[in-house]
Amino acid sequence: MKEAEIIVDENLPVTRIIREFDAPPEKVFRAHVDPDLFVRWNWPEGCSVRFDQFDCRTGGAYRIAMSGAGIEGTVHGSFHDVIADELIVQTFTPDAGPDLVILEKHRFEDLGDGRTRLTATSLVESFEHRDAFLDAGLVEGYERLDQLLEELA
Amino acid sequence: MKEAEIIVDENLPVTRIIREFDAPPEKVFRAHVDPDLFVRWNWPEGCSVRFDQFDCRTGGAYRIAMSGAGIEGTVHGSFHDVIADELIVQTFTPDAGPDLVILEKHRFEDLGDGRTRLTATSLVESFEHRDAFLDAGLVEGYERLDQLLEELA
Repeated sequence: MKEAEIIVDENLPVTRIIREFDAPPEKVFRAHVDPDLFVRWNWPEGCSVRFDQFDCRTGGAYRIAMSGAGIEGTVHGSFHDVIADELIVQTFTPDAGPDLVILEKHRFEDLGDGRTRLTATSLVESFEHRDAFLDAGLVEGYERLDQLLEELA
Repeated sequence: MKEAEIIVDENLPVTRIIREFDAPPEKVFRAHVDPDLFVRWNWPEGCSVRFDQFDCRTGGAYRIAMSGAGIEGTVHGSFHDVIADELIVQTFTPDAGPDLVILEKHRFEDLGDGRTRLTATSLVESFEHRDAFLDAGLVEGYERLDQLLEELA
């Protein structure tokens, strides 16, 4: 099993997760921006997801409802920058906690030989928010993403 | 002349500017979301501004070109949350420095007697970015906003 490196910055309210995938950046990026693929790995098993909006381009936005697996509620955010196969910068807020606004950067780095390093950085405005949000779920999701990438043409 | 309080956090890459206005929240908010008003106070005198996009609602985005007064270039961002007369949460990036992403919150607080306290919070992912961006321009803009608010019906 691949290891995800999780870096919790001591001096900044930032979490950084670094993970490598045995697939080229085009595929890993596609699994983030295509809702039909995104839904297959980014949520817990047994969680039902409804995309009320998912316009993954620079200046677009999203609103997603989740139900099941102990999760119930909606989240929303904006896509600040989307650069194909390279970068997604977006905001994220759970509607149950509207004061929590997370600024996320997903950077896709081509390692050659059909491999990709993904660096996911989350910035919030307090250490309390950062520590409350630190989420093992994303790392589990990356294991499902490994499987999905094997199936993708 | 009104004083703006500028708070540079020692422990977080955050700047907070607090300023009071002799106008109710509805007017101060309108001066932020109506491009015809926004253009009259938020830029230096002599700077020409073109709104290529300015869709100031939750999930909207903007792209603005500026020219003159020593400024030349475009900026863009997304409106993560826009709550009438209360709150604007948005991102901001100068296209000349695409790695700089600023998360801004503008909170409009009703002080009664037709007065408003505006708290503008800027969060970035490093202290270097924060200190480079610390901008007296916004405070000057607020003096022009005072004048504009007097003229608004």
